[in-house]
Amino acid sequence: MRAALVVTGTEVLEGRVKDENGAMVAASLASAGVAVDRITVVGDGLDEIRSAVAEALGRGVDLVVTTGGLGPTHDDRTMEAVAAAAGVPLRLDEEALVMVRAAIATVPARASEDVREFGARKQATLPVGAVALPPPGTAPGAVLDAGQAVIVVLPGPPWECAASWRSASAVPQVAAVLGADGAAAPLELRLANVVESEFMEALMRRGSADDGLVVGVCARPGELEVTVRPPGGAADDFVSFLEREFPGAIFSRDGSTVEEVIGSALTARGEMLGTAESCTGGLIGARLTSMPGSSGWYAGGVVSYANEVKERALGVPADVLERHGAVSREVAEAMARGAQAHVGCDWAIAVTGVAGPGGGTAEKPVGLVYLAIAGPPGVEVRELRLHGDRERIRMRAATIALHLLRAALDA
Amino acid sequence: MRAALVVTGTEVLEGRVKDENGAMVAASLASAGVAVDRITVVGDGLDEIRSAVAEALGRGVDLVVTTGGLGPTHDDRTMEAVAAAAGVPLRLDEEALVMVRAAIATVPARASEDVREFGARKQATLPVGAVALPPPGTAPGAVLDAGQAVIVVLPGPPWECAASWRSASAVPQVAAVLGADGAAAPLELRLANVVESEFMEALMRRGSADDGLVVGVCARPGELEVTVRPPGGAADDFVSFLEREFPGAIFSRDGSTVEEVIGSALTARGEMLGTAESCTGGLIGARLTSMPGSSGWYAGGVVSYANEVKERALGVPADVLERHGAVSREVAEAMARGAQAHVGCDWAIAVTGVAGPGGGTAEKPVGLVYLAIAGPPGVEVRELRLHGDRERIRMRAATIALHLLRAALDA
Repeated sequence: MRAALVVTGTEVLEGRVKDENGAMVAASLASAGVAVDRITVVGDGLDEIRSAVAEALGRGVDLVVTTGGLGPTHDDRTMEAVAAAAGVPLRLDEEALVMVRAAIATVPARASEDVREFGARKQATLPVGAVALPPPGTAPGAVLDAGQAVIVVLPGPPWECAASWRSASAVPQVAAVLGADGAAAPLELRLANVVESEFMEALMRRGSADDGLVVGVCARPGELEVTVRPPGGAADDFVSFLEREFPGAIFSRDGSTVEEVIGSALTARGEMLGTAESCTGGLIGARLTSMPGSSGWYAGGVVSYANEVKERALGVPADVLERHGAVSREVAEAMARGAQAHVGCDWAIAVTGVAGPGGGTAEKPVGLVYLAIAGPPGVEVRELRLHGDRERIRMRAATIALHLLRAALDA
Repeated sequence: MRAALVVTGTEVLEGRVKDENGAMVAASLASAGVAVDRITVVGDGLDEIRSAVAEALGRGVDLVVTTGGLGPTHDDRTMEAVAAAAGVPLRLDEEALVMVRAAIATVPARASEDVREFGARKQATLPVGAVALPPPGTAPGAVLDAGQAVIVVLPGPPWECAASWRSASAVPQVAAVLGADGAAAPLELRLANVVESEFMEALMRRGSADDGLVVGVCARPGELEVTVRPPGGAADDFVSFLEREFPGAIFSRDGSTVEEVIGSALTARGEMLGTAESCTGGLIGARLTSMPGSSGWYAGGVVSYANEVKERALGVPADVLERHGAVSREVAEAMARGAQAHVGCDWAIAVTGVAGPGGGTAEKPVGLVYLAIAGPPGVEVRELRLHGDRERIRMRAATIALHLLRAALDA
């Protein structure tokens, strides 16, 4: 089964918004073993959307998913475009109208009754033959069986899009596509501390195995993501090969993230984690607390951006700061121990570094970062010298710190 | 001038990575007044990339920008695909080879000499006639003048892509496209606390003005982004109209973010900010510290996820926690005052709430959030009842808190 995604929104074409919906639907399709042949991002214009949907139908895909352009305003024209591409007219769907009116009634009435009713009728106007999806916001999505392909029309705001996609997945025509080859989902591995060139060299050493495996590699800051398809015996042999080549590097075999692995390990141990962040400024805390249930294993932390906060909230001695500087092995260790004591936790991650673009010196250049992990076995400190811009240095420091903790929990 | 973007990468089609490069290049083109007609995301296959580039050329655009697929491995085929689409052969570029070898020499040698040289030659093989760009990592991008259009080929890792795009922008053929209609960049407004339906009603009240303006609206959590083009007299009249309709709502007229506006206001006042975050877990600190130079106005904060941390690190009295619960007006206020005292700052933002999916009760449902802003004039507390999933509630609480502070700094 093959699918195509059409993401609409001039704000995406102008780079003001990063598309999240395409990635969300694509990941869901991939996990069901449905291949996405193309994601097309177009503007809000009727003809742009219509031609992108028509091209996807022309490529013979089984499923077309559109996102965005379902709002109450004049520039929301996706339903019209989908109807045109599928060659059916539009009509006011009375059932959809009831759902939209009910949804609008729960929103504080800041627009007049007339405007609200106008918007309701606009949002309930669907291609003939389409099934309306319950609106998570005020715009209903729709599923249209267009003969050779099924077209799913989803709203643009990411949480509405995700909720509508869940509803759409239960509609029989969509479920049929998703269920058709569920066994084809790839094996998804994550490796820590392996760079792409090493991985490539390992592949070359292995030689061509004639095992029919397709191996995909994607480098992320501090991690390597490897997909192997089809799953099964040959893929398992390949995993064993990687285990020998890169001992301890594979930390996930089911797509679970480092945050999830850490959460499970801490839960199993009945221990709590805290953070002391300087240059990452809260990124690690934000990543950990994005996990539902993280309050069971994450106590909290201190963002000690200023030196006074390192002293006051973490108890880093003033003379250690003075003697070694805020970006030092000694301060990283004192921050981690301070988090254990002041936050009150079994394990602590501390990060201090120069994220740039300013603040670097010859001795302590931009990219110099010290990480410390404190736990029941003691404290471990690591020096990093990272490249790239401010965001890359921060993201990478956060990822490497999480992996250092993961390895310590695993030990 | 019109451009098309072709993003390559099976990992994007499978939803394992959200594309950042398309958005980065699109934003840069938009600010230069170059319209992007389409962003096409395709997999790593030679023919997929070739046909997407060929289709873009066929649409008659002036510029095609590709990202990704320049690595040393067998599945990196973008140069080959671009050459095929442009109808030119490939050749080993000796100048590029020198640059790639030099770049590889700075990377720790974990692969063998043979593998490294193989990869260097692969990465230095470019379409005939292409100008190699200096490699920020090890892969050089390229600029190819294909007659009617210029093709820019950029590497995939986001920081390499951004650096190569800056290099490419200085190449005369690309600079000519970017400089052709620089005056056409739209006016970009940001409004706080206005929802799309209110905005639409205001537009209807205004009626059709025959002023030739094209107004685009994009709703983001807690903000509305409005673009008006072309800029100039009519656009300025439109801004005056919005100021009368939504007094105080426009907080940015040059695309600057709420974080930037806060940083400027604090710098002008010579005052410092701190944070006390519970359900947002560090998101606000991470957003503030993503700004270069934020150490000049952000002292740090406490992520007080557990109640013990609220008591211990922020001095929230145990009896206040017991009497009112962690998610309460009183605890939000005590957290903000505690941040002022314990972090040591003039202003403090505090957030406590139920982000879900668990932890909600009839009295305190998922989405109930209390914000407090403490500053020299006193403390202000706000109750929010937010909808959506965990990430949406967290993001939205963070954005609304930042706007509450911005308004307080503005008062």
